Amino acid sequence: MSDSIKLADYLFTRLQQLGVDSIFGVPGDYNLRLLDYVVPAGLHWVGNCNELNAAYAADGYARMNGASALITTFGVGELSAANGIAGAYAERSPVIHIVGTPPRVQQDTRALMHHTFADGEYKRFAAMAKHITVAQTEIQDAATAPERIDWILQQALIHSRPVYLELPDDMPQVLVSSENLKTPIKVPQAPSPTYESDIIARILERIYAAKQPVILVDGESQALGIVDHLDTLITSTKWPTWTSVWGKGLVNESHPNVYGLYASAFGDQPAKAYFDSADLVLTFGPQYSDTNSYFSTAIPKPAAAITFKDTTIQIESDIYRDISPSRVLTQILSKLDSTRVAQAEGPPKVLVTTDDINPSDLVAQKNFFRLVNPIFKEGDIVLAETGTAAYGGRKFKLPPKTRLFTAVTWLSIGFMLPATLGTALAQRDQKNRSGSGRKNQAVLIIGDGSLQMTAQEISVMIKEKLDILIIIINNEGYTIERVIHGRKQAYNDVPFWRHTQALTYFGADEEDIKKNTFTAKTVGEFQAILDDERVHDGKGVRIVEVFMEREDVQEGPLLWVLNKQLDEEKAAAA
Amino acid sequence: MSDSIKLADYLFTRLQQLGVDSIFGVPGDYNLRLLDYVVPAGLHWVGNCNELNAAYAADGYARMNGASALITTFGVGELSAANGIAGAYAERSPVIHIVGTPPRVQQDTRALMHHTFADGEYKRFAAMAKHITVAQTEIQDAATAPERIDWILQQALIHSRPVYLELPDDMPQVLVSSENLKTPIKVPQAPSPTYESDIIARILERIYAAKQPVILVDGESQALGIVDHLDTLITSTKWPTWTSVWGKGLVNESHPNVYGLYASAFGDQPAKAYFDSADLVLTFGPQYSDTNSYFSTAIPKPAAAITFKDTTIQIESDIYRDISPSRVLTQILSKLDSTRVAQAEGPPKVLVTTDDINPSDLVAQKNFFRLVNPIFKEGDIVLAETGTAAYGGRKFKLPPKTRLFTAVTWLSIGFMLPATLGTALAQRDQKNRSGSGRKNQAVLIIGDGSLQMTAQEISVMIKEKLDILIIIINNEGYTIERVIHGRKQAYNDVPFWRHTQALTYFGADEEDIKKNTFTAKTVGEFQAILDDERVHDGKGVRIVEVFMEREDVQEGPLLWVLNKQLDEEKAAAA
Repeated sequence: MSDSIKLADYLFTRLQQLGVDSIFGVPGDYNLRLLDYVVPAGLHWVGNCNELNAAYAADGYARMNGASALITTFGVGELSAANGIAGAYAERSPVIHIVGTPPRVQQDTRALMHHTFADGEYKRFAAMAKHITVAQTEIQDAATAPERIDWILQQALIHSRPVYLELPDDMPQVLVSSENLKTPIKVPQAPSPTYESDIIARILERIYAAKQPVILVDGESQALGIVDHLDTLITSTKWPTWTSVWGKGLVNESHPNVYGLYASAFGDQPAKAYFDSADLVLTFGPQYSDTNSYFSTAIPKPAAAITFKDTTIQIESDIYRDISPSRVLTQILSKLDSTRVAQAEGPPKVLVTTDDINPSDLVAQKNFFRLVNPIFKEGDIVLAETGTAAYGGRKFKLPPKTRLFTAVTWLSIGFMLPATLGTALAQRDQKNRSGSGRKNQAVLIIGDGSLQMTAQEISVMIKEKLDILIIIINNEGYTIERVIHGRKQAYNDVPFWRHTQALTYFGADEEDIKKNTFTAKTVGEFQAILDDERVHDGKGVRIVEVFMEREDVQEGPLLWVLNKQLDEEKAAAA
Repeated sequence: MSDSIKLADYLFTRLQQLGVDSIFGVPGDYNLRLLDYVVPAGLHWVGNCNELNAAYAADGYARMNGASALITTFGVGELSAANGIAGAYAERSPVIHIVGTPPRVQQDTRALMHHTFADGEYKRFAAMAKHITVAQTEIQDAATAPERIDWILQQALIHSRPVYLELPDDMPQVLVSSENLKTPIKVPQAPSPTYESDIIARILERIYAAKQPVILVDGESQALGIVDHLDTLITSTKWPTWTSVWGKGLVNESHPNVYGLYASAFGDQPAKAYFDSADLVLTFGPQYSDTNSYFSTAIPKPAAAITFKDTTIQIESDIYRDISPSRVLTQILSKLDSTRVAQAEGPPKVLVTTDDINPSDLVAQKNFFRLVNPIFKEGDIVLAETGTAAYGGRKFKLPPKTRLFTAVTWLSIGFMLPATLGTALAQRDQKNRSGSGRKNQAVLIIGDGSLQMTAQEISVMIKEKLDILIIIINNEGYTIERVIHGRKQAYNDVPFWRHTQALTYFGADEEDIKKNTFTAKTVGEFQAILDDERVHDGKGVRIVEVFMEREDVQEGPLLWVLNKQLDEEKAAAA
């Protein structure tokens, strides 16, 4: 007979093998017995203020760490997390959603328990989860539990998307075989198709023939596991490299050939001219949502593009399936003859200066991001919430190993604050695992409208003693919505809050509150705050509130949309 | 050709006809054009801090008002509301959930818009809504829009449950026929079945034969539309009357024959003795979840019960279907010969006194509820959140026309705070409609764990200038979960907050903050606060924080469960 282990210990051992050291969630009647095993298993329990916040945090953790776990309770808990799980699906974050369900006897007898509709139906919420997770399973007995757990975890890794695991409340202490634990969970690789060498040859041929080449990195590159390969490609070809919104933060922007974000007509004109006439655009991990592709304008033209995505590579109109982009890219890199690669000269880089900004200026979209940028250090995490913050944050020049998280496709406002908690925890866990790593901070830039969605999670950041700088753009409401529609409408207002009281309310240490809270209206005030060591290199949670005008937006898509609205208003008035 | 009206105006006119004067929700990219019509239609827009809070508030509004409306945006917004909608389903609250979806051209072309999974699929979230709403529809064209709107609203009324209405962002201004608006939406009535008179005769016979009768009122009585009938039955028979947890607040507890809550073995023993030996239990609108029925112990025995529920009446083991409880009850009341009805003498009533409470005592579960009770006035709204507050709140003696909302079946912590906003708004809207009504207040009793889930909605209460008293039980975490499992476990802790700073943070007027914020540890302190006019009859939002021990619970189910856990601990230690 094989060795046995309690089911909860089996699950948590597996999670640790995947690099998960902290678990997010909220206790509830049907998960308490499972929670008993979290700390004894050597895992850190993060009790979030609510389940949506927990899901957002778990999503952030997974984006940093390759996987994360979220524990909620049946019905009330899991449904509160639904939007967070959906966002993880849309933006390929492998969150393991573990739902503590009523004990098997209650489900079998269709007992009319609380957290149900009192109709004996226990499959309703699992049916909902099918639409927003890539795989679902239910633990029902000890014999099949290990393989079901292994399978569901593997699905999360294969697809880099959330999965849904139901675990009845009477099962955490059930003994299961520990045999499988000896073998780590691996992502299966399909064999190379017979045509793989032809594809590699065709790609190499195009690479050698290219006179005006571009490398374009999008966010699904992380799910493809090719981020390190791309760095090699970028440094060995020295080709002009851009990213999508989502790809930003996956590429080392300190390489001289890296230009940052490609924004087509909404960005730098020489970049657009170069990009438009490129004869090769090596495109990695694209997701062409309107928001991630500047209304599709940043999508490379098919004639020039070679596109690596999931299990396909597309060259012109030929789609090759059942192929591993990672394996193909590895081989291309090993075969690449640098002497045959064009010395491509990209367009001139746009120099960002702060010379035109005066201390007496009001803080505004046009100066804010340039003022903030210098505080970022290697290895920091930068998070720019959906809204004006996201549009401004796209233009940051990031130091090496600095991850950027911003609005890609799901765009659920409120996400970024708990996600900051999750990413900062992941970074701390990584340091604890490796036993090294310098001090870093997470910097969140967020509007007042988004902040109100999930503000209570600041208290968890404080409880966790994380080093997080929160810069709140107070423009009295949903400026991003004002720009899209309803410029003067009251429905785009939000209630008035005193943001400088956040640390007091959310329980920071008495002596830290004053020294970690700041406000600025002018550039001079803001610069003095940024120069303060407590802000650019401080400890704990710090709050900086900056005030901006209600309709102040950056040049680019937002100003374009705002101007469209102004034109419509003029036409209506005429 | 018939008169025409803009689609948004059609919808909002219909909502007003149903008594909906305020709409809850959050603006989003795909609902802004619809929101343009809210205020011009004479409706009040309540912008909530997030969609779950909005759903909870809409649920509260519907419980007071018979219907409510919630507007969210596609994907991100609607999914955040899912748990709130599910709770409305479980506890029969007719919330009209209107989701602003992407314009038809984007859906038709499967455009890769934000707030989707960037895969062209637009039906995913509607498929999820099927599991938690009683009916769903999508507005697709002008010709069928009025009938679809009418149908969906009617479904909400028929079932007293939430419905789901998709409205594309390009449709609010589309012209539709206004013809239907002349006819109010009505709930259809099935014809009387041939056996209806037999049933009525059989029930009357049982009523006349009864020697030890009971009236038992549960919460689905409101969905049956029989709350007024029940008052007549209670006053004309003078029979001993109890309620379930949910039924409490639907019955006038100042009638001498009304006993309040029936808690079987967890309550008053003479009541249980009387109830157990009853020969007739007229049972109305039951929902026998474990939490609403004291683990099924408060369910009347079938031999004595006559049960009115939805479209059935059950007498002993005979279930009569396709029958209207409301119509049957009307006829019974009109035929009832009071002289033939037993003069039933119920058990002695339990007298609640505060004689044993001393000013130097600490505020605790055993005295708190008795101290609070006297501040309730006729027409107030009392809300006791899931947790220790709910268990204590069950014992309140309520003045006439005082609605009580507490933990029934869904038990989603965090619900009650936004629900307080919703009920208070419904009451204000009712007063505005009728042009009369005295000043009332809503009193929310909530633990610190629940409060953290949805606390930001306090800012909307302040913005709306509602008269709401919030009493926070600060026992440092989820005491209800500690009792169930994990008595000393850290996962049942919550982050430390300074609750007395809530009004400051959430934007109350500077001059109101100090005078509307209170804390108490002793009975003497608490009594002085309750005696303060600003508390028992004040204006605006007021916060009272009381401190209790971490494992302090009432006698009854919670103490029983706690003792079970203590016994298990002892057994494990032995």
